[in-house]
Amino acid sequence: MSVSATAVAHPNIALIKYWGKRDEAMQLPATGSLSLTLGIAPTTTTVTLSDDPKVAADLGTLNGEEMRGKDLARVQKFLDLVRERAGSQAYAQVDSVNEIPTGAGLASSASGFAALTLAAAKAFGLDYSKAELSALARRGSGSASRSIFGGLVEWLPGHDDASSHAVELDNPGLELSLVVAVLSPGRKKIDSRAAMRQTVATSPFFSAWVEQVPRDIEEMKAAIAAADFTAVGSLAEANAMRMHATMLGALPPVRYWNSDSVAALDLVASLREEGTECYATMDAGPNVKVICRSGDAEAIACRFRSEFDGIDVLVSGSGPGAYLM
Amino acid sequence: MSVSATAVAHPNIALIKYWGKRDEAMQLPATGSLSLTLGIAPTTTTVTLSDDPKVAADLGTLNGEEMRGKDLARVQKFLDLVRERAGSQAYAQVDSVNEIPTGAGLASSASGFAALTLAAAKAFGLDYSKAELSALARRGSGSASRSIFGGLVEWLPGHDDASSHAVELDNPGLELSLVVAVLSPGRKKIDSRAAMRQTVATSPFFSAWVEQVPRDIEEMKAAIAAADFTAVGSLAEANAMRMHATMLGALPPVRYWNSDSVAALDLVASLREEGTECYATMDAGPNVKVICRSGDAEAIACRFRSEFDGIDVLVSGSGPGAYLM
Repeated sequence: MSVSATAVAHPNIALIKYWGKRDEAMQLPATGSLSLTLGIAPTTTTVTLSDDPKVAADLGTLNGEEMRGKDLARVQKFLDLVRERAGSQAYAQVDSVNEIPTGAGLASSASGFAALTLAAAKAFGLDYSKAELSALARRGSGSASRSIFGGLVEWLPGHDDASSHAVELDNPGLELSLVVAVLSPGRKKIDSRAAMRQTVATSPFFSAWVEQVPRDIEEMKAAIAAADFTAVGSLAEANAMRMHATMLGALPPVRYWNSDSVAALDLVASLREEGTECYATMDAGPNVKVICRSGDAEAIACRFRSEFDGIDVLVSGSGPGAYLM
Repeated sequence: MSVSATAVAHPNIALIKYWGKRDEAMQLPATGSLSLTLGIAPTTTTVTLSDDPKVAADLGTLNGEEMRGKDLARVQKFLDLVRERAGSQAYAQVDSVNEIPTGAGLASSASGFAALTLAAAKAFGLDYSKAELSALARRGSGSASRSIFGGLVEWLPGHDDASSHAVELDNPGLELSLVVAVLSPGRKKIDSRAAMRQTVATSPFFSAWVEQVPRDIEEMKAAIAAADFTAVGSLAEANAMRMHATMLGALPPVRYWNSDSVAALDLVASLREEGTECYATMDAGPNVKVICRSGDAEAIACRFRSEFDGIDVLVSGSGPGAYLM
């Protein structure tokens, strides 16, 4: 009988962004970051250790299709690390299902590597704490370190492999939701790893970004502790704009915004002026994510559906950390 | 008989931008800048000294309408300075005509104050060099210092009132044109003086901007001297993106882009990929200005007209400095 484990993890959206690494090989970030784990679009991943001696590589499926190329190589590299930690020689079969299409702009690599981390650690017999699981997930994908935990999460930048992991934050009174406007990408997306590298290497604003983020994190934690939605939302929006500004300073400029993104930013500003308090954030793609009080989420989603013909609009509250099935 | 003088000046578009002052009262800029004076949309201004002792204030018309409020106050404040320099007590009538509507996004304050400077200096009998006229125009509107000169112009930041003026640059071989896509403003525009102030006070990127611009100016002057269109265009685009990034870092963020602006930036990128080499620049408004070789300007304008239904698209080559009629 083969050893197998299944885990579920959800995407997360950063309120204070992660942009830029200080160590590429160890996936150590230039700064900390802070996110909300969502309750939608989970990834469910099963890791099955092979007991067939003829199997000489990790293999996998994503939504029923064979994993290939760079996606497969990234999973294999991650499993090499797990094998090394576990002192194992076994190869694995990884079967992963994402409830929304990979690449729709909800960082599927975060939920994907968080679920893979839990399932692989269990299958390979690593008895890890949540902090250790988070640090391990980080090696697969930086933001996956945050999806190990539920609700509001801080990823501590740390000073080495073990200390760079996420922690769950107390949330004494905020009922946050996110409304995700899934906009068509238009021009081709720049891979976020390459875009980070280009920013670190060429943007004159990168060092100011690295100095600013720790201040933003402290301010955000104070706003969360005070359950001050206005402070949380306005700081999240300002931080997102600063991340995109940092990229726009690169040579050549890195721009993820398309015309619909800007129309969506304008709609968020209009909603706010009309009295529905909400704020925008954006990641390495054209989608706009609206941060709001949970009671306003459906009305905001409805407005987006009516102003942007035919687009998908997702609504999510706070979701759980990664868990084994 | 009353003393009267008439002058003409053209707008200019910065290839290396002016954003932020180091001295508000003296209108001293935080950095130098570099621009192309256009050959379209001139302002023609007549200054007539009053010999009627009952006239106790400067008055004016703009495109045939009485000047009022802030516009009139700004002209009066400028004429106070001219009167002081000239040792005169006379009030003036200022009649100004802009060939395109004020506020269409071609900085009409640059052509306006450049024309006013020449006409007022002549009417009040100030015998000024071009550099002195440029420094004086700066007091009315920073970028007006550049419209005193034609073609490619550098505004030297200077260290005091007299030394902060523009100079004309040699242009050994570039035939530059600008294609201006006049996009509808959508959301209300933030006044550029207020936006500069907000950027200086709150953007964590402002000091990096101030360090970067002198490097961009030196590189741009080298590219102009080498008649290297690719270097001129790509640097102008990167510099413009960095200016907008610097604003986007402010608290709250300053964003002049609307959805059409981004669609226009995408069109410029598409044209470039298709083999028509051109680059985008943007100022404190939604309009996108396309920097191109003069031989490509009409084809680019045609493409903009077909992709953006019903918008005005202006084409201009290099224009002359301000002159007396």
